[in-house]
This record gives sequence, structure tokens and C-alpha cells, in this order.
Amino acid sequence: MSTVNSQDDEDTFKILVATDIHLGYLEKDPVRGNDTFVTFNEILDHAQKNEVDFVLLGGDLFHENKPSRKTVHSCLESLRKYCMGDRPVQFEILSDQAVNFHYSKFPWVNYQDENLNISIPVFSIHGNHDDPTGADALCALDILSCAGLVNHFGRSTSVEKIAISPILLRKGRTKIALYGLGSIPDERLYRMFVNKQVTMLRPKEDEDSWFNLFVIHQNRSKHGATNYIPEQFLDDFIDLVVWGHEHECKITPFQNEQQRFYISQPGSSVVTSLSPGEAVKKHIGLLHVKGKKMKMEKIALETVRTFHIEDVVLADHPDLFNPDNPNVTQAIQAFCMEKVELMLDNAERERLGNPHQPEKPIIRLRVDYAGGFEPFSIYRFSQKYMHRVANPKDIIHFFRHRGQKEKKDIDLNFGKLVSRPTEAMTLRVEDLVKQYFQTAEKKVQLSLLTERGMGEAVQEFVDKEEKDAIEELVKFQLEKTQRFLKERRTEAEEEKIDEEVIFFLQLICALCKE
Amino acid sequence: MSTVNSQDDEDTFKILVATDIHLGYLEKDPVRGNDTFVTFNEILDHAQKNEVDFVLLGGDLFHENKPSRKTVHSCLESLRKYCMGDRPVQFEILSDQAVNFHYSKFPWVNYQDENLNISIPVFSIHGNHDDPTGADALCALDILSCAGLVNHFGRSTSVEKIAISPILLRKGRTKIALYGLGSIPDERLYRMFVNKQVTMLRPKEDEDSWFNLFVIHQNRSKHGATNYIPEQFLDDFIDLVVWGHEHECKITPFQNEQQRFYISQPGSSVVTSLSPGEAVKKHIGLLHVKGKKMKMEKIALETVRTFHIEDVVLADHPDLFNPDNPNVTQAIQAFCMEKVELMLDNAERERLGNPHQPEKPIIRLRVDYAGGFEPFSIYRFSQKYMHRVANPKDIIHFFRHRGQKEKKDIDLNFGKLVSRPTEAMTLRVEDLVKQYFQTAEKKVQLSLLTERGMGEAVQEFVDKEEKDAIEELVKFQLEKTQRFLKERRTEAEEEKIDEEVIFFLQLICALCKE
Repeated sequence: MSTVNSQDDEDTFKILVATDIHLGYLEKDPVRGNDTFVTFNEILDHAQKNEVDFVLLGGDLFHENKPSRKTVHSCLESLRKYCMGDRPVQFEILSDQAVNFHYSKFPWVNYQDENLNISIPVFSIHGNHDDPTGADALCALDILSCAGLVNHFGRSTSVEKIAISPILLRKGRTKIALYGLGSIPDERLYRMFVNKQVTMLRPKEDEDSWFNLFVIHQNRSKHGATNYIPEQFLDDFIDLVVWGHEHECKITPFQNEQQRFYISQPGSSVVTSLSPGEAVKKHIGLLHVKGKKMKMEKIALETVRTFHIEDVVLADHPDLFNPDNPNVTQAIQAFCMEKVELMLDNAERERLGNPHQPEKPIIRLRVDYAGGFEPFSIYRFSQKYMHRVANPKDIIHFFRHRGQKEKKDIDLNFGKLVSRPTEAMTLRVEDLVKQYFQTAEKKVQLSLLTERGMGEAVQEFVDKEEKDAIEELVKFQLEKTQRFLKERRTEAEEEKIDEEVIFFLQLICALCKE
Repeated sequence: MSTVNSQDDEDTFKILVATDIHLGYLEKDPVRGNDTFVTFNEILDHAQKNEVDFVLLGGDLFHENKPSRKTVHSCLESLRKYCMGDRPVQFEILSDQAVNFHYSKFPWVNYQDENLNISIPVFSIHGNHDDPTGADALCALDILSCAGLVNHFGRSTSVEKIAISPILLRKGRTKIALYGLGSIPDERLYRMFVNKQVTMLRPKEDEDSWFNLFVIHQNRSKHGATNYIPEQFLDDFIDLVVWGHEHECKITPFQNEQQRFYISQPGSSVVTSLSPGEAVKKHIGLLHVKGKKMKMEKIALETVRTFHIEDVVLADHPDLFNPDNPNVTQAIQAFCMEKVELMLDNAERERLGNPHQPEKPIIRLRVDYAGGFEPFSIYRFSQKYMHRVANPKDIIHFFRHRGQKEKKDIDLNFGKLVSRPTEAMTLRVEDLVKQYFQTAEKKVQLSLLTERGMGEAVQEFVDKEEKDAIEELVKFQLEKTQRFLKERRTEAEEEKIDEEVIFFLQLICALCKE
């Protein structure tokens, strides 16, 4: 596949490509709460300045399935600000829009609505974060599409069979067949592909004259045998796949040699996990398509909060750390602090001078403490960086990679608790409950119970006639209740639920003692 | 105040007036779930057919502070469908819009936005149901205003002092000063009025040439000494007050003789409580204003579900019911059934033939059973009307008006429970828990506890050294937890929480037994 010149002309589509913007991610965080909104504005600003024909989004525009009022409001504000205006849209749609947007209340492209003055149409599929749910099968994008600000496409209603009908676009002599497939659970889609139940419809006339662009939001890397979509599942008539969902920026189109098509993986525009993939510089793409030729121009995002991640393996430094030295923990701490200082220096150097780029970087130092070392107090370490990094609470991540991890079961003697004075109890119980839940996660017998009815579970415990059967059951129920209660809650609500559940537990302990 | 002719002319404002539409009320109810959306469409359809200049809403457009995705989606759909279009808006705004809409991201009236083609501007204040909340102080209307479909006005940010700046409108020779005040807790606003902290600004020029229209959303009827807004608090230069919040339709302007202004109370467009006020026929208004003259034309809403309410006082029928007759309960039930049949007949006759009006009526029969009578099983009664009325579960409401109600304390011996077999227990406990909460509501000692810290409460119980102290505390905590958990939940979620809490209680009972 050859490239086109970047010069604008009447036959060249200019498309701004981005994905996984995750609006509203950490929105309640006092430091990072605005990051996603700032970068969304930067993305739309690039679209406007580059006078693109349209914006193409690969899903997960929203982080939450039911985004907060603030997030929806902020998103509408940005779209209305950047995507409305007098600059005329220069391409036309040749396909049947009633088919392309059949589930919309306004089943036509927004820029052709006589009541809306759209200068940059946005086309988006939904992701796994913002997929349709509930009896009405609506998703957050439908709010935007109902407001006339986004063209939501690539939605399939069947769970067994998918026929993807492209949106056919023409600008001058260039014709694009735009295929989209909103997020579907990977295993289901995998199965549908294997059973040949996924069809991509092609225009009847001049089949080969179209540039075939496919946008998808699925696992690209293998998570279990069928929990991803192998690239070779996709049809080989496709010219370019824009692959959403994967957060690492690999936007430069890379050819799948078997299928011959190219894949561009824009990656997310916000760091949502502290893993190496997210530390790769974030970009969006300016895709030029002329005839069957394309060129992907990378645009570095300037407002993304810088993120630096490094690993330290303590056992690799026998000269520095001896586990038998009583002061070794202090030495480790000092060493980590030096590391973090270096990372902060690098982060500062890397800042781009964009006034909208947030100041404090995200820093993650992963410390492999296998080999007889002990972790130091993360709390105190965090305190030191409270005003210098965006994620003070999780700068340090201890893990043990070398050798087998020693299993440390936490003793959960609830009887102990009630012998403590009331005031001190809350804190202690809180710690123990947390430990309990961490341990409980791993207990097979508990997780198995969730598969069966409660009545059966009670019976089993009673049959056992174990001394602690009921106490065990209370704990199990507590855990289940707590999990249920935490479904889709805000952090503040979760904290309040924690408080309530913990106090409840105290009372039960007191009763057990009686 | 004299009236104007209803004929349209270039000097006459035609304003559609409505309030308390409560979009999303009972949206999960399989029968009544769509009622609010249907009637909202009817209201906007009237606005369109009558070619009004604008729509004026008096608050509580939404029932929930954070309306569901479906509700927001449906609302946007209706507004985009009915309020956008080519019919030109015929009035102009003379006031400083940056002041009128200062808290909006787009601080100008929507029909003057170059990117939106608005034919019917909607002006709305917020109500107590959809008032601004949270750190960002946004309300549901702000989503609509950000989408360019509603002009949210009358918002005050101070809690001590309010200066209401009118939107000044002119159509031909008619000038309207439109004042709005979104819902504020009544007692706070009462205090501000008393302290002379509420000012209504008036246009400097030709002060007397304006028709002064004020829209407010507060208690109009007295709920406690300062928990409402007395009409005489309002300035006497006002010509017409549109009073929201009160659900009874009293839309025909009624003069306050002291202040000389008129008050129109449109009332809600949906029945949200089964009280006589809601049974008054629902209307919206078509307000004509020409110069200083006005006329309010009533428009009967045709899609509102019919609602019939009647009272029966058993003791008023000594000829029919003798409390000593062993079959008296059956006689009462038969009597009530006859009543309901008559009400159903009336409801059927009253239906208007509008294809969008829902079929099943809402029926409420209030039965005063004072005088030694016993209520019959509401459950069985409901079953009979499952397919004929919209509210089968609460057709009958038993109450005792005559004489003093006998206090019946429900025995709450949790110990009893654990002697029952496991399967049967859940149901029994469910009943008991419900009874417990009903009784607990009235217990002063429990409600007082909520005022103090939990630590203190524990201490008090421990000091008492009562045998059942801890059990009592568990119950109290259970109640508190349950209440908290029910804040802003859907019915389905509440049921699930109930299940969880009840099972939890079972376990505690089992522990108590040990």
C-alpha cells in the first residue's frame, strides 16, 4: 500500500482517528479529575485546526456505562463547541442512512439535519465501557446522537449473526466504505467468527474501487484461547483496521502479512492503568485517504499527563541489599526515593509546555522484593510525594516475581476483636475486614458458593455441623452483600457502605462473643 | 385586569405554560412507565400546533434529580422533534443574556444560536426534584441547555441574597419582563423574604409598560409556619405569577386581592400521589399577552391516565355493616368491589378517545374502618383488578379517621425465628422485618439516636447493660443501613437490598440463638 501526499485536495478525505478517550475516568480525583475532558478538547481542537472531514472514534468515549451528569454535560459542551459551525462538510453519503443508523431516533447523519449546523461530523462505535445496556438497550452515545452531536454506528442487535453494512462515503473521486462493529464480548464474537456468522456486506458496484475502513473495539492481544479476536478472522478485502480497546499507542499502520490489510491501534488518550503499555507516548491520527491510498499522520497529544514507570529487582543488587541486614528496609526505601527523584526529573524534562498539560506526573515504581526482603510502609512513602505526583497513593507497587511467593494466610479470629475497647475497634476491624476480603477472594469454597442458591449453601454449612459454620456463613454473606452494594457506586458511596458494613460486622462479633 | 382577544397578531405573545411534568416518574412500572413521556409529547405537540412563541415550564420537568439515561434520551428526542424547525421566532430579547444565563456554558438564548434551528424556545426554571446538586452544581436541565434545547433561567447561586434579573422580551408593541426563581428550600427562601433579601430588578425605562410575569416553584399551601411562601411576599408590581410545585390544577388565574396580581397554578401533568388534588382534571395553559392585557386559555390534556378517588366511611353505614357480625369483612369487601366497579365505569366514560391515552385508570378507594372493623386482605383484592387498573397494589387504602387509633405494638421476638425451618424462614422474616421497620419509625429513642455519633449510642447501650441491648442495636443499625442503602435506588435495586438485608438478619438471629 502506497502513501498519498498530505496536501489537501478535493479528492482527499482527512479523518481524525482517536479511541478510548474514557471521559470521566477518575473524575472525582481532585488532581486527575479533569484530565479526560482537557484531552478531549485537545483532540477536537486538532480536528478543527486540521479541518478534517470527520472524526472517527473507536469506542469507550465514556469510562462509565452510565456517565455522570458532569461528564455528559462536559462532553456535550465540547462537541457543541468544536463540531458545530459554518464550515461546510465536503463529503456525501451514498448508503441508505436508515440502515446505517437504524436504531437511532433520528436515523440520518447529523450534518444533513436541517436544524443542526454541523461542521465536523463525529462517527463512533461504542466500546465495552459504554456499550448498550438495560431494557431499553441504550448507551451513553445515544444521548449524544439524540442531541445530534454524534453519529453512533456499528451497532448489531443480534447475538448470533452479524451483517455489517458499511456507511458509504464519497469525496470527489475517493470512496470510503466505513465498517464499524461496536464492542461485543470477545468470546461471543470469537464464536460467531468461527461459525461464519459475521458477514461484511460490500457495495454492489465497483467493489474494488472502495477504500475499506473497519473500526472495531475488541481484545487484540490474546486473553485466553477465545477471549480475543485474531486478526486473521477479519476479511482480507479490508484496507485499514482501526483497532480500539487496546490502550497502548501503536497508531502507525502495521501490515498483517497474511491478510494484507493494515492495522492502526491509536491507543487510549488517558492513562487508566499503571502498566508499561500506557507509558508509551499518546497519539491520535490524521488519516488521509485518496483513492485507494492512505497516509496516517501521527499527532502527539500535548495535554496527556506524563506517566513514568520503572522496575526494580532487589535481588539483582546483592551489593546494595542484604536481607539479613537489620537496616535493609531503610536502604531499600532510600534507593526507591532516589529512583523516584530521577523519574520526576525525566517527567519534568518531558513536559511539552502546553499550558493545558497538567503539572504533576504519574509515577510508578515496581519493586520486586523476592529473596527475603520486606516491603516498607507505602503510606509514609506516599506522604512525601503528595504534592509532587498525581498518584501518591500508588507510586510504589511491591511484587514478588522471583521464585514462589510464600503463602501467608491471615488469621481471621473475630473473637479477638470484641476484647478490644470500642473506640479502637473500628479501625482494627476495618483492617481485618479488608484483609479478610483479600484472603477470601482466593478461597475456592467461597467463590463456588456464589454459583449456587443460598438455601443450598446454608444447608451445606449446617450439615457440616462445624463449630464456626454460621460465623463463616455470616462472613460469606457479608462479602456477597458488600460486593453487590458496590456495583456501580461512586467512591464516596463505597466508603460509606464500607463504614456501614464494618460497623455491622462489629455488632455481629459482639453477638458471637455472647 | 382585562382580557385580550385570542386572535393572533404581531403584538400578542402566545406562551404555552406547563409545570411538574415529572419525566421518568414510575418509569420502570410496566403499565405506567411511559405515561410522562407520552404527555410531554402531547404538551409539545400543543405548543407546535398553536404556534406559540415559547414554552414556559415551572420546574420538575424531571422526576429524579439524576434522571435515567432513558429519560434524558426520551426528553432530548421530544425536544429535538417538536422544538426545532424553520418557523421563525417572532420575539426579541432586550436584556443582557450573559446575565440571564450566566451559569450556562452557552450564555445566550438557544434560538439565537447560529448553529441551532429552534422554532419553539423552551424557558424553564428548575424544581425541587431537578435542582442543582453536587460539587459542580449542575442540574438535569443543564444537560438540555448544553445540548441547546432548553433555556434554563432563574437560577440563584447565593444562599443569603437573591436579586432576580428578568429576561426582557419584546414582540411588536408588547413587552414582557420574565422573572424566574428556581426551587429553593422553602424555609430558607421564607427567611430571605422576611429579611428583605429577595429583590426583583426592574427595567429602568418605562417601568410600567412591561407585563411582569414571574415563575416560581415553591410550596404555596402552608406546611408549617415558615415552610411555604405566602403570596403576599411577592412584589405587587407583578402581573401574573405562574406557580409550580403544587400538583392540583388551578390554572385559571386567580387574583390575590391584597397584592392585586393574578396567580395561575397549572398543576402537574401526571398523577404522582393518590390524593384528591391529583384527581382534578389536568390542564396546561395557552397564555396570551398583549400590552398589559392577558388571557389564559385552558387546554385539557388528553393523554393523562384517568384517576378516580373516593372515600368510604364504614361507620356511616350502620345499616350495612355491623362489626359484631362474623361475616362483616366479606360484606365490606363486596361493598368495596361494587364501588370500584362504579369507579371503573366512570373512568371508562371519561376517557377521551385520544389514541395515546393509556387504557387502565388509576383507582383509589379510601376506606375509613374506624369503629371496630378489620381491614380485609388487600392482596387478594388487588389480584382481582390486576388487568383492569393501573395501580392494582394500592387500590384500597385503609385508614382510621374516627376516634383514636388503637396502638398495636408488634411483638418483635427474633428468637422465635430461628426455631423455624430454613426454607420457610425467609418469608416470615421478611414480614417481621417490615413490621419492625413500621414500628421502629415511631420509636423516639431510636430516631433520637440518629442525631448522635454511633460511638455514643454504643456506649449508652452498653451502660444500660440490658440483656437485649446489643440485639436492639443490631436492629437499629440494620434500619439505618437499610435506609442509607435505599437512597436514590430503583425499585428492583431496593428489592435486592431488602433480600440481602433480610438474609443478613436471619444469620444474626441464628447467632443470637447460639
